[in-house]
Formats: sequence, structure tokens, C-alpha cells
Amino acid sequence: MNMKASKEVSLNMNVRGLGQSATLAVNAKSKALLAEGKTVYKLGLGQSPFPVPDCVEQALKDNAHKNDYLPALGLPALRKAVAEWHSKQEGLDFKPEHVLIGPGSKELMFNLQLVYYGELMVPTPCWVSYVPQARIIGRPISLIRTPFVDRWHVNPTALEEHCASEDDDYRPRLLVLNYPGNPEGCTYSSEQLQRIAEVARAYRLVVLSDEIYGPLHHKNEHVSIARYYPEGTIISNGLSKWCGAGGWRLGTFTFPPDLDWLLEKMGVVGSQTFSSVCAPIQYAAVAAYEGGAEIEDYLAHARRILGALGMRCSEMLNEAGVLLHDPTGGIYLFPDFDPFREKLAARGIVNGAMLCDKLLEDTGVAMLPGRAFGRPTRELTARIAYVDFDGAKALDLSREIGLDQPLSEDYLSEACGNILEAIGLICDWLKG
Amino acid sequence: MNMKASKEVSLNMNVRGLGQSATLAVNAKSKALLAEGKTVYKLGLGQSPFPVPDCVEQALKDNAHKNDYLPALGLPALRKAVAEWHSKQEGLDFKPEHVLIGPGSKELMFNLQLVYYGELMVPTPCWVSYVPQARIIGRPISLIRTPFVDRWHVNPTALEEHCASEDDDYRPRLLVLNYPGNPEGCTYSSEQLQRIAEVARAYRLVVLSDEIYGPLHHKNEHVSIARYYPEGTIISNGLSKWCGAGGWRLGTFTFPPDLDWLLEKMGVVGSQTFSSVCAPIQYAAVAAYEGGAEIEDYLAHARRILGALGMRCSEMLNEAGVLLHDPTGGIYLFPDFDPFREKLAARGIVNGAMLCDKLLEDTGVAMLPGRAFGRPTRELTARIAYVDFDGAKALDLSREIGLDQPLSEDYLSEACGNILEAIGLICDWLKG
Repeated sequence: MNMKASKEVSLNMNVRGLGQSATLAVNAKSKALLAEGKTVYKLGLGQSPFPVPDCVEQALKDNAHKNDYLPALGLPALRKAVAEWHSKQEGLDFKPEHVLIGPGSKELMFNLQLVYYGELMVPTPCWVSYVPQARIIGRPISLIRTPFVDRWHVNPTALEEHCASEDDDYRPRLLVLNYPGNPEGCTYSSEQLQRIAEVARAYRLVVLSDEIYGPLHHKNEHVSIARYYPEGTIISNGLSKWCGAGGWRLGTFTFPPDLDWLLEKMGVVGSQTFSSVCAPIQYAAVAAYEGGAEIEDYLAHARRILGALGMRCSEMLNEAGVLLHDPTGGIYLFPDFDPFREKLAARGIVNGAMLCDKLLEDTGVAMLPGRAFGRPTRELTARIAYVDFDGAKALDLSREIGLDQPLSEDYLSEACGNILEAIGLICDWLKG
Repeated sequence: MNMKASKEVSLNMNVRGLGQSATLAVNAKSKALLAEGKTVYKLGLGQSPFPVPDCVEQALKDNAHKNDYLPALGLPALRKAVAEWHSKQEGLDFKPEHVLIGPGSKELMFNLQLVYYGELMVPTPCWVSYVPQARIIGRPISLIRTPFVDRWHVNPTALEEHCASEDDDYRPRLLVLNYPGNPEGCTYSSEQLQRIAEVARAYRLVVLSDEIYGPLHHKNEHVSIARYYPEGTIISNGLSKWCGAGGWRLGTFTFPPDLDWLLEKMGVVGSQTFSSVCAPIQYAAVAAYEGGAEIEDYLAHARRILGALGMRCSEMLNEAGVLLHDPTGGIYLFPDFDPFREKLAARGIVNGAMLCDKLLEDTGVAMLPGRAFGRPTRELTARIAYVDFDGAKALDLSREIGLDQPLSEDYLSEACGNILEAIGLICDWLKG
């Protein structure tokens, strides 16, 4: 038996059959089309369209010489800045010693699932990596499918029924909530969060509150469930979305004091895996979380652009007869093409994956099927990331328009014309 | 039961009782002494004393604006540069598609152990993280204790006996070799590597060849076991040691084609955990691995300094009656104080941990006990990292002396006086 064949005996069962994320697959297909000289509208990849703010980029340059290993839990100045940032946002009192820094919030989520011996409970549609992480580690997974009418969010009553149905009140469970959400672009109201908090308290759930899009709530009205369930909520944040720094890989977890045992063990696992996060990046992140006028301005324009653009896309799709909710934050729409089921079936399209494939082939518009987000295969849902435009140019143009004014149709055509064109192509394709 | 108490039911058994690395513990104690106003010689932490080469630091500044998510396997230009670098070093033909980039080689080792379902086999003394990683994942661990007379390295005959003794010829095993080694500063001869390769081939071992200190072989004569066991060797490297960039967190794995199934699944796990490595750092690393005159010069001086200093320390300790081998590469010495066992026992010191504790208290010299490297508790071994000096100054002073000349005692006193002082204190303390 040669080394190649030893694959058959020595590959961890938990990773067999597991592929790279769906996002990457659609990228590969898009690249192939581009290579053929076709126009591709990349509504598949969920990356911020905006550059890193100048002051943060400058902070990275200023700290390029920093080469020491930093503490596994994170640079003290950064833990302090993150604690103060969340304290200010939520009106709560977070301490630096309850903040953990990681090379992306995704890595921290993996380490949390590794350290916490419990079931992963996820409302779907959900972000692509929660479930594969649980699979790799070998944790039980419990999906809670949510309906369109609930804005694809978990209904507190359904959550309670789900918890009760497992007939195991002491079951250790990790509930993931992601709002404003990927893939659906909606958020929870304060009242909903309060009701979910009651259920979480009754069942002693650990809530992983993925608030990576929080600062991109289009009206800057993000509220964390930590306000209502402080004792059991871990807030996840990071630079990737609000600071345009996906490629920099910096995520943060903020723990309640009662979960310090998880923080401590995650620090141990961190020290034995990634060691510590890249030093120059951590120093730069201090500038980002300390904020200031430049960052405020950047975020105000980013929110206004994403809000106006998301709303316009939603209007266009609604007018065409697609089922979807107006977005309230982040960079996504999650249309359901079910009203077109018969028409699409006549064209041989009977599920979301086929829909996305055919749309990409016919029009060059890349979306991701609902299946990638834990939805049933047969469903005709898909995720649109409305970010394939030049964010630097869009910010510049937005800065010419007073923040008290709305962004016009003309602005959107000039700054984000590409996206409107893509949405137009989807609408036309549905008619055809 | 509150959230704090749920620790008792929902903490993964594999992380219970696991602390942060021993290195960090000695750091904490050193800091406490410094706070008391005492002088501390930090021979505990194994960090390069040198700054990042100017051209690499500049490359980081030039790429500070890079904010895209890079591919999970690594930036193509970097994978190419690493493949060419190893090809040149070893006279083999490594391809870019067989290189994997991670946020530190430690993270890649963890992911390898996660993906590979097999036993971890480690000669000890060994680096502090291999074994805790296997514990976290829950893999069987097999330690092979090596004797002083074999320069603390695994003897091919002993390796063969160990493999045969398990009575399971098809057992999937991952053998870790680390040379030049942490903690012992020695390396394997080509002949030894050839004989180990024969055993590895017979038992189809996957060899994780940790060559992070390879470029710091004091005579620049590092040879990889990949020359003799190409089909089963994964070479681990990274920027931390040879490029003075421990805090930057960039590691590389180079696979043989027959182990592409491990590479592929590690890519999947990478995409679901750290996603990709920090983009600006990867672009900067291209400059490091592409090399050139400035890097050659930097390495030539670094090797000369470490070689001369390590040798001088070894001489001093040998003269004092301590058992140790002259170093051949890297930044460590692994003295055995066993000749002083009776004398130390009279002072109440009966194991390595007590020796390190008492030495630190009495003299301010911090070392790490052999126990941290998988040695028996009772043993009087310890690791010395001879790097607590100003590397930038040492490089500048070395550049004033032609590379064809040896570094004098005067040079060492001026550039690394701190280390000689610390070694002197150890020798005096042993007499006392």
C-alpha cells in the first residue's frame, strides 16, 4: 500500500465528503466564465465593497515592524478598545478581560465549538460555516428551519417547542443567532430578542450572537441580545465587514463573566493552535475600535449606501414578483423564487442550485442557492450579496451628498450601476 | 444551575486540565520579578532576537491596503515562492500546488492532526505543542524518549523497535521530527535521516518534518529528510524564526504529491476555520521567500551570531561540569544538570522544575524545565533560549566584521553580553 492509498485508512471520518465552502465553488465557476470573456456579476461572495479606512491602513503601516508574539488572548490595548466599543454600543459594562481576539471570528467559533461540549442549534437559513464546523468536531447539530413570514428568523415559540421536544432539559446547547443576518439581511426587533432571551434563560442556552454585521445596520440601530440575556451571550464581532478588512483576519468574542471558563479554555486552545493573532494587524485594529470622526464618517456613508442600494434591489425584485423582505442591515438579500416554480419547472429548473446555475450561465449573474445556507434542496431560494461595485468610488460620490439627504436613483446608477444591472437581468430572466 | 456551573457538564473532556503553554507560565513569573525591580534574563521564550528584514517590513507597508479574502490554500505567488525556495534548498522539485499557507505552522500542525486519523509519534525532548494538540483532538500519543548520548534524537533502531512493538503494522502513524531542534539545538546527519527514512518507508509513516529552524543551521548546511523519504514527508516551515517574524503568524507546509488528499482536506478545514491567512502578511512573505541579497546577508549574519554565541554558552556550561551538546542550529541549548544531582538535592532541589524555579529566584535567569518538553519530571534537564539580546544591534555590529572572519569574544561581550552574564550566573549558582 502506498502513501496515496493510506487515505482509505487514515482520513478522519468527520472530514470525509466535506468540501470547501459553497462560496468558493461559485467563485471558481465565475472565473471560468470570465476566462471565456463573459461578463460576470459577482453577487456570490459576501465581502465588503469598501476599502479599509485610511487611518486604519496607516496604523498597519505604522506598526509593520511589530514582530513579537502577542498574548494568546489578544493585545491588551485591543481587548480594552473592543470592550469599550461594545459597552458604548449596548450601554452595558464589558471588561477588557472578557474579550478574546482571534484570526477571524470564524476561527473563534470553531474553537468555541471545540471547547464547548454540547449541541449546535442553528436557525436556518444560516451562514455557511457553523454546521461544517460542528461536523468536523463531531458535535450533534440541530437545525431549526424558519419560514419566510418570520423574515427567516427564529420564532421564540418555535424555539421553545424545539428545546422542549428534545426531552433533555439539561442538554448543553449552543444557539447561534446572526443579525443583521447572512444570508437574509434582516434583524430581530428588541421585543423578539427579549422573548428569545427568556427561552434561552429557561434552557440555559449559551447564545453565540454573531453580530459581525451589527455596525452595518442600515439605520445604525443595532441592538444585541446581550442587553436581555447578559449572563449567557457571547458577542461575536470583527473587522471583516464593518471595516472592509475581510482579508486581514481579525475577529473578537466578548464574554459574560459567568462564561469565563469558556474564555479561559478557548485561550488555551488558541495558544496551542494559532498562538496569537498577527501583531501588526492587532495594533491597527486598536485604531479601528477606538474609532473617531473618520471612522464615524466612513460608517455613516457605508450604511447609507448599503441601505439605499439594498432597498432599491428589493423593490425591483418585489415588483418582478419575487418573494423577499426589505433588508435592514448588512449586504444581503434572500429572495424566494417560489412564485415562479411552475414557470421555472417548464424550463427544467426544479431547485435552487439549478436556478443559480442556469441564471449564471444565461446572464452572468452569480448567486448562491439556499441549500448552501441550510435550506431544503428543493427550495427556490438564493442569496444575493449586493457588493460587486467599487466601494472607494461609491464612498467618494456619497461624500458629495449631505448625510441628511437620501441617495438618489442617479447616485445608485453612477456608484452601483453594476448591481442594478444585475438585478435587472434577474428580473428579465424570470420573465423569459 | 447558573451559567458558571454549567462548566461541569459542558466542557470538552479533552481540554479539561489543559493549561496555557509552559513558556507563558515562566513569562508570568519573570514579569512578577521585573515588577519587583529585579533583573531577569529571559532565557525562557524562544523568539528570534532579530528584527524582520527591512525589505520584508517594507513589503508589508506596501501591501497594507490589500483587504481581499485570499484563497484558503494561500496566495498563489506565495505558494510558488515557497515551492521554489524548498526546491532550491533540497535539490528537489516542489510544485506550488503542493504548498499550503497557514496562520503559523502551529495551526497547520493542529489541522494536520485533525484531518489525519492516526497516532502521534514524537521523540522527546520535543517542542511544547505537538502533544497538547493531540490531546485536544483526542488522538493516541506515543512518546519515544531519547537519550543524551544520541544528542536527544531518535535512534533509527529504537524507532524501528518502537513501531514493531505495537503489533499493528497497518497502524496510521504521524512521526514528528524537528531539526535543528527545539529544545536541544542539534540536528540529524544525512546518514541518520537516510536510516530513519528506511524505517518510515517500511511502516508507511507520515513524517511531519518540522524544519522551522532549518535556515538557522549555523553552518547553513540544513538537509531535509524529504531527500530520502520524498513520498511521505511534509516539510513545515514559516517566517517566525528565520525571518524574525514570530508575531506575524505565517507558516507553510509542503506536501509530497502522494499526500495531496491530506493537503486537500486541510484546505477544507482551513476554509472552515481561519478562512485564509492575513493578506498583507502573505504579500510580504513573498518578498521573504523570494529572497535576494539583503535576505542572504541577513541570514548569514544571523547564523554567524547564533553559532558563535551558542558555542560560547555551551563551552561555559561544559567547563562548569554540565552535560550538554554543542548546538548546530537554531537558538537553544538543552543542558542536563544530572552531574549536580547530589549537590542540588542537598539544597532541596530534586527535579527540573524546582531547579528552574530556584535558579530564577536566586539569579533572575529564566529557563524552562525538561518536563515542558515531554521529559520525565525527575530529570534535571532544562531549555535555554539564548536570544535575550538586542538583535538589531548585534546585526549592525556583525556587519562591521567580514563574514569570512569569526566573531570574537569581544564581539559577543558587546553584542550579547546579557546572555554570557546569564550563563555565568548559572555556572556560579551551580558551585554555590
